[in-house]
Amino acid sequence: MLQSWLPVPPDSDFSIYNLPFGIFSDERPARVGMAIGNWVVDLAAAYALNMFPQYPEAGNAFRKAALNDVMVLGRGFSEYVRKIIQTALCDHQSDLRQLADHLLIPQEKVRMHMPVKVGNYTDFYSSEEHAFSVGQLFRPDNPLFPNWKHLPVAYHGRASSIVVSGTPIIRPSGQTGQPDGTPAFKQTRALDYELELAFVIGKDSVIGQPISVEAAEDYIFGTLLLNDWSARDIQRWEYQPLGPFTSKNFASGVSPWVVTWEALQHFRVPAPAQHPEPFPYLTHHPLQNFDLSLSVSIKPEGSEEFQICQTNASGIYWTAAQQIAHHTITGCNLQTGDLLATGTISGSGISQKGCLLEATLNGTKPVKLGEGIERRFLEDHDEVIMRGFGQRGDIRVGFGELRGKILPALS
Amino acid sequence: MLQSWLPVPPDSDFSIYNLPFGIFSDERPARVGMAIGNWVVDLAAAYALNMFPQYPEAGNAFRKAALNDVMVLGRGFSEYVRKIIQTALCDHQSDLRQLADHLLIPQEKVRMHMPVKVGNYTDFYSSEEHAFSVGQLFRPDNPLFPNWKHLPVAYHGRASSIVVSGTPIIRPSGQTGQPDGTPAFKQTRALDYELELAFVIGKDSVIGQPISVEAAEDYIFGTLLLNDWSARDIQRWEYQPLGPFTSKNFASGVSPWVVTWEALQHFRVPAPAQHPEPFPYLTHHPLQNFDLSLSVSIKPEGSEEFQICQTNASGIYWTAAQQIAHHTITGCNLQTGDLLATGTISGSGISQKGCLLEATLNGTKPVKLGEGIERRFLEDHDEVIMRGFGQRGDIRVGFGELRGKILPALS
Repeated sequence: MLQSWLPVPPDSDFSIYNLPFGIFSDERPARVGMAIGNWVVDLAAAYALNMFPQYPEAGNAFRKAALNDVMVLGRGFSEYVRKIIQTALCDHQSDLRQLADHLLIPQEKVRMHMPVKVGNYTDFYSSEEHAFSVGQLFRPDNPLFPNWKHLPVAYHGRASSIVVSGTPIIRPSGQTGQPDGTPAFKQTRALDYELELAFVIGKDSVIGQPISVEAAEDYIFGTLLLNDWSARDIQRWEYQPLGPFTSKNFASGVSPWVVTWEALQHFRVPAPAQHPEPFPYLTHHPLQNFDLSLSVSIKPEGSEEFQICQTNASGIYWTAAQQIAHHTITGCNLQTGDLLATGTISGSGISQKGCLLEATLNGTKPVKLGEGIERRFLEDHDEVIMRGFGQRGDIRVGFGELRGKILPALS
Repeated sequence: MLQSWLPVPPDSDFSIYNLPFGIFSDERPARVGMAIGNWVVDLAAAYALNMFPQYPEAGNAFRKAALNDVMVLGRGFSEYVRKIIQTALCDHQSDLRQLADHLLIPQEKVRMHMPVKVGNYTDFYSSEEHAFSVGQLFRPDNPLFPNWKHLPVAYHGRASSIVVSGTPIIRPSGQTGQPDGTPAFKQTRALDYELELAFVIGKDSVIGQPISVEAAEDYIFGTLLLNDWSARDIQRWEYQPLGPFTSKNFASGVSPWVVTWEALQHFRVPAPAQHPEPFPYLTHHPLQNFDLSLSVSIKPEGSEEFQICQTNASGIYWTAAQQIAHHTITGCNLQTGDLLATGTISGSGISQKGCLLEATLNGTKPVKLGEGIERRFLEDHDEVIMRGFGQRGDIRVGFGELRGKILPALS
């Protein structure tokens, strides 16, 4: 076991094994940092002290307000930086310790920013439990479309409106269908969250050249929690025939710290078996996911928070490697900074559902939060809090919190 | 009538009234230029000669390999630059004429690049003739979905794979459905083009704040031709329930010169009347489109080219202003460099169809190109050429050509 001289609470998401990258600011401009316990290591300041001598040209990458330039330097670079910091955190004589006043900043004193400049955001539909439950609500006899077990269904989401944890969400207004088949224009009455993981692409691919499923994981820099905010009543009216648009493009939230691909490796587990066997371009063995506990809580205004969902990423049907291989099979290129999200992650039990659409059976069966508090969909001033972590023995690696509070609609 | 000292062929798309912006390179790196006749004005060199004294800080914007930094300076800036160049082209004593050897480069000697770094690409479905014909192929009794006349249907497309005219397109392979309901993995046998216009967004909007339909046109910098390449057999299998994905994300082509919003103003015409009247957030009067002739030709390998479509942008149902208002109604923000495309532009006649899916009734009625040459969908080595221009009296403003040639599938 590694042991840092800096005290890290045992339940911290940011253990010595995690060391995620993020963008923070204090009285000085936004720059690259690394989380450890309740602290941020200022990597721009560490670079200025020559702590990364093997990469003498990397200084500018740490002074940017997005991780893209760090990612462009490759996983070899980010791993090198993590190793340097990990070693320094365990070495009682290290420069990092001697200069801790200069290099370590309490997390409570910084503001976190969007970690990545997102070029393209793709949202998959990879959890069978989710696809089945949602399908069952609208097509009881035929919940999964015929294509679902043959390819990872996905759509292109909106990149411009991806916001970091803590950004408030204004309740959207838009067109919804009415029972008589005509639309109404009004505030959404079916505002929902979707609990997802997002893989951050750290390497460009070439247009016209599919990425093989074997090489796919090389393109992943790390992982975030993602909340794909959705207005279900608007979605239902608009989505035919080209998919969701204004019902989802108003905002998606992400957690601020990118957990690196290497930090996730402690938590590999077998993914569900796939029947039928997919086409060769999607076939790889072993099929693996990550054993990550995920939860959603709702905190009504003036109240404590109530956990409403507790699930796990291990059961996702289509793996990250398969998502990448499918995304590029016709020749689409990936770019550094792209996000590929899993889609809502749900388990089979009602308390394992990653969105209210499923947990309340489309608003027909409210979930009880606490004494006298129930929800069909989100209400104004509700705050949604997503969390996720892996734990193997004493090794704990987590995402921190992804928070978003609903503000009333514009008048 | 304005008259330039530089000879401009009367049928040139790049008249003294057009002066579009683009990105070109010769032996020196890519930078900003303006088209006039068969020439490019090197705006970076013109800036260095102090031709734009009201914007002393604008030089860097002209030395970039994308127009985004020019657009960020506002339409006031781009209009100022066009006026300076237009005046200099009409003034026989101008510096531009004295230094023509230095400032003007023949178009045949330059390479054109992607004009804009595209952050987000949205594709609408705004031509009623197109939506109706396509709907009729698959749902004869119910061609238009109930939402179609109430909102401009759209989906988020893929920004990373937008390529400039001249970029070859590799025939994609992917999953297609078979008559027995199972998929096959093979080269697409239904490769198609889609004739569209794309509006280039030149100004950021604020997340959470819808853009009013009255203010919407202020966000448009200019317009491009766009070819939304599509693999129909892949699309049919994958699109439910979230819309097209790998069937379209392999490439979209754009013309290299951005025709400015101001240059388009000569061609305003009334748009089709809308029944039912849309919601107030989509209502503006007068409803206006642009009278732009658009055509598609196919040039088989070793053959001359054959024009297969001749249509006009004046009949588009949903206007650009309505597209912007709808895109942002739930709070989605627009960013400088975003593209909003119209969707396929079709007229009612069979020779006015903007894609082969319509022109051949889904491949069932081949179109005759020339003696013994017909097409159901595109064949390898076919080159697709799109053109578009407006003409009012002697004033002609065009886009130049958008070309793309099909290469055989990867083995």
